[in-house]
Amino acid sequence: MKKPNIVILGAGYGGLMVATRLQKQLGVNEAEIFLVNKHDYHYETTWLHEASAGTLHHDKVRYDISSVIDRNKVTFIQDSVQKVNAEEKKVILEGQELAYDYLVVALGAESETFGIQGLNEYAFSISNVNKARQIREHIEYQFATYHNEEEKDDTRLRIVVGGAGFTGIEFLGELANRVPELCKEYDVDYHKVKIICVEAAPSALPGFDPELVDYAMSYLERKGVEFRIGTAIKEATPEGIIVAKGENEVEEIKAKTVVWAAGVRGNSVIEESGFEAMRGRVKVEKTLQAPGHSDVFIIGDCSLMINEEINRPYPPTAQIAMQQGELCAKNIAALVRGKEQLEEFTFDNKGTVCSLGEDDAVGIVFGKKIVGSKAAFMKKVVDNRALYMIGGPGLVLKKGKFNFF
Amino acid sequence: MKKPNIVILGAGYGGLMVATRLQKQLGVNEAEIFLVNKHDYHYETTWLHEASAGTLHHDKVRYDISSVIDRNKVTFIQDSVQKVNAEEKKVILEGQELAYDYLVVALGAESETFGIQGLNEYAFSISNVNKARQIREHIEYQFATYHNEEEKDDTRLRIVVGGAGFTGIEFLGELANRVPELCKEYDVDYHKVKIICVEAAPSALPGFDPELVDYAMSYLERKGVEFRIGTAIKEATPEGIIVAKGENEVEEIKAKTVVWAAGVRGNSVIEESGFEAMRGRVKVEKTLQAPGHSDVFIIGDCSLMINEEINRPYPPTAQIAMQQGELCAKNIAALVRGKEQLEEFTFDNKGTVCSLGEDDAVGIVFGKKIVGSKAAFMKKVVDNRALYMIGGPGLVLKKGKFNFF
Repeated sequence: MKKPNIVILGAGYGGLMVATRLQKQLGVNEAEIFLVNKHDYHYETTWLHEASAGTLHHDKVRYDISSVIDRNKVTFIQDSVQKVNAEEKKVILEGQELAYDYLVVALGAESETFGIQGLNEYAFSISNVNKARQIREHIEYQFATYHNEEEKDDTRLRIVVGGAGFTGIEFLGELANRVPELCKEYDVDYHKVKIICVEAAPSALPGFDPELVDYAMSYLERKGVEFRIGTAIKEATPEGIIVAKGENEVEEIKAKTVVWAAGVRGNSVIEESGFEAMRGRVKVEKTLQAPGHSDVFIIGDCSLMINEEINRPYPPTAQIAMQQGELCAKNIAALVRGKEQLEEFTFDNKGTVCSLGEDDAVGIVFGKKIVGSKAAFMKKVVDNRALYMIGGPGLVLKKGKFNFF
Repeated sequence: MKKPNIVILGAGYGGLMVATRLQKQLGVNEAEIFLVNKHDYHYETTWLHEASAGTLHHDKVRYDISSVIDRNKVTFIQDSVQKVNAEEKKVILEGQELAYDYLVVALGAESETFGIQGLNEYAFSISNVNKARQIREHIEYQFATYHNEEEKDDTRLRIVVGGAGFTGIEFLGELANRVPELCKEYDVDYHKVKIICVEAAPSALPGFDPELVDYAMSYLERKGVEFRIGTAIKEATPEGIIVAKGENEVEEIKAKTVVWAAGVRGNSVIEESGFEAMRGRVKVEKTLQAPGHSDVFIIGDCSLMINEEINRPYPPTAQIAMQQGELCAKNIAALVRGKEQLEEFTFDNKGTVCSLGEDDAVGIVFGKKIVGSKAAFMKKVVDNRALYMIGGPGLVLKKGKFNFF
């Protein structure tokens, strides 16, 4: 009998968790496992704001996929996914087609611009390693150019961050630490630099504990960040952004750097493949299967699950993606072995820590609020845990964050 | 009796040499010495190609002027020189006017574009610290952007260097070492990168020993540099450059980075002040005085002296500027002390070394040709010597180059 083909699309938190668990759980003779990813490396999406600000080198944020997979069991294919053909049980890649018996779609998120004009053209998004290092270099080039112009253009020293959600706030924390370094590097007067955060919602970190939100905002404000809360971006232009002001008025905020950190959506391959979805996220069964496709599992940012306690979807996080990856591996192994009863997913919320730069953070861990250096410490524990779950202690030693003190 | 005012314009090799020698030679009661410079730091002009390529940090290339002047004797004024009014014996700065009894004009060079269209707008010049770090960041940003575009634009990975004189060749040597690092940093295929040097003269390093020119060119060619010798740049555009091809034809070389390293001229303050000059260089007396102005000394890149052996002007170098600075200080001290007989300048040519990157070079030292690591070693000795002459052993220890092996 032919071994079943298991195809995993994406080597992010979810996909790589599935691959590394399956290679432990299944014998060489039980299945062929294929892992498809655009790059030959995995990157820590939740650390990209650091690489974007330039406070952590992007090579610290990524590692070779080959270093965590067992090549006796998993075949790695570096390619881009175009489309899933669920009827014919195959995946169309840029370079080839792959037939599957079991498919895991773990393609992660894309930036969502909500149709705001100009964002795609004139704003950066913190979405991958390529983008992160481009943002870092773009900002640095603005500072490097400042003293070379006859008429000094202060908008070169202005950075607008669109969105005060987790990514926005964490990026602001890094920027606030990075800007003094940039000022020193390029002999720029610190007081000429502006970091402006524009958020349409009535609060930063919507849904987060108000006390922690206050802490985060006043911490960042003390470090020079200017918040424009309850302010919607109407348009991005080559000169900056246009925001709504009152009912009918608009205001221009000039800035040579605009980073859009306000929205993510599931990968557009989801819609291209005909899955029913909301912003690229498929409402999956509790077993993580796509509705109507018992051989297709969708996990991570491309999946949508309802938190029944509050009747709202769980936000897409690395934590949930990895937990889904674990269960997904288990369920696929069960199917491969002919078991029909699959396990259902329950989210074990270990808490959330939002970094405010290297030495401060706010968070709720095991139900307890923490701030300051204790929270910053916990953030590093969380970051190292992701490495540990996928690559074990060796990966933690290689890529972990140990600047604890 | 009022002490005479000695005003030194420029804290480059020449000006700083005058200031540091005068502060040793004159007592506090003999003269008031003013040193005027745009920045509060001195930079090693001859190291700027390294900062521009990104192989040496720009902070290594500069030091605080205050660290080498004796503030009991020299008053430092950070300001920009607008004009010298030799009739009224005063200097007009942006922020104030300064009367002088003795003036030293040591304002250095500017980039000379020979009227080639577009060079000012679209090409960089390796002319100061601000420009150097902008070039470094510009190149880096091109590499950082490469993988972010749907359609890869290979011209982002192309660097045109206009001119194969000393600056051009030395910059190429650094670039050839830097490019593999950039490729690694941004996951760029090394073979896609092009470094093209365009030189209008019939040879690289015109006037230099042909055997050494051959060595330099073939060394750089082995490292991937493409030479277009005997090719004149007609125009720089936002896309690259237009060069002459044959009699009437032109050819476009597309490149997102164009660095113009083919010409320097004296500071334009020279002409603004009404001194008779050729490209900003005043043909000075052998005593270094400006013709007709016995109280004005002009040294370094703003001065022009004929090498009588070959009846051609000495090229403007740091070596000659420093030697002129030494004599200029001596002559001014003599005038302050009422002596009328001034010394005449004779150039003591210690040789020339042209760097080809960190570990190779070509040169003639004490009349002997050298290449390879020996020449690279000598280049560092030359670089350290400039520090030693101005700031003594302390400055060499602080800013010297000791990566000898």
